[in-house]
Amino acid sequence: MKFCSQCGAPVSLRIPAGDLLARYVCDACGAVHYQNPKLVIGTLPEWQDRILLCRRAIEPRAGFWTLPAGFMENAETTEQAAARETGEEARARIEMGELFSLINVPHISQVHLFYRARLLDLDFAPGAETTEVALLGEDEIPWPEIAFRSVSLTLRHYWADRRSGSFRFHAEDILLPR
Amino acid sequence: MKFCSQCGAPVSLRIPAGDLLARYVCDACGAVHYQNPKLVIGTLPEWQDRILLCRRAIEPRAGFWTLPAGFMENAETTEQAAARETGEEARARIEMGELFSLINVPHISQVHLFYRARLLDLDFAPGAETTEVALLGEDEIPWPEIAFRSVSLTLRHYWADRRSGSFRFHAEDILLPR
Repeated sequence: MKFCSQCGAPVSLRIPAGDLLARYVCDACGAVHYQNPKLVIGTLPEWQDRILLCRRAIEPRAGFWTLPAGFMENAETTEQAAARETGEEARARIEMGELFSLINVPHISQVHLFYRARLLDLDFAPGAETTEVALLGEDEIPWPEIAFRSVSLTLRHYWADRRSGSFRFHAEDILLPR
Repeated sequence: MKFCSQCGAPVSLRIPAGDLLARYVCDACGAVHYQNPKLVIGTLPEWQDRILLCRRAIEPRAGFWTLPAGFMENAETTEQAAARETGEEARARIEMGELFSLINVPHISQVHLFYRARLLDLDFAPGAETTEVALLGEDEIPWPEIAFRSVSLTLRHYWADRRSGSFRFHAEDILLPR
């Protein structure tokens, strides 16, 4: 951030009075521009013992496989975001289930949420940001070609829970080595 | 948003190519400025059968009672945000517990998370944004003076679960009447 989005004057990075962290502050109009983590929300769309995955058409990680997920938008709920992304990326219709995983990715200031979901039919198809959609069982998952660590963690918890006979909520942090 | 934070030129609100929603777009440098929901994160700090609440020193809802909570910051995890806010607002030390509630508040583009927590000692005190901190049992909660609906929902679930003998995760949406 270089300019104030309210008045167009240059901003400086400093700790505002009464605050504890440096913020972009406008020296002309006084506006403080906060920056906060973003939510990335998706689903684990289930059909019998298989999960729907999408091959990414876009960067980052074009060509790699992911669960349908994306940035939550203003004015929607987390479940609405999960269903919308599943529709946009895989053209899939689902019945939403429970929140399954919350994964912190603090080095990129993101929080990832994945919901369990039941596919309602097999009429899925690649959306604009996807080249291929497939239903894959545990033995068919191309683990080295999974796009994001939050997705591989969520998939591993899914099949571990499935084997154990009960699904529970999983919380994890993906931290960079110091 | 009126000006581009990258180059200072005026922005316009329109749907970028390949997108589905209107965004603030810079006609000079082409930057697209996304706006996304914010996470508000706090705790239910427990001491025996009582919960620590804070009376707000600041707007919105100055003078009303709340659980210690606030906006998640970049580069932290959800648990770190919950512990930091509990320290800042109530000068309290806690052992963090499980995620207890996720409450969508889409009309203000917020997602509220509350964690269970165990107070480690009784040396709490009001922080800068708090006038008073108190440990309150269910019968002592000033329900009409609770600052936010996500807080009263979370407190009601807490005591209902406590009576039932088992705590579980609660997900809710606070929707405005149409």
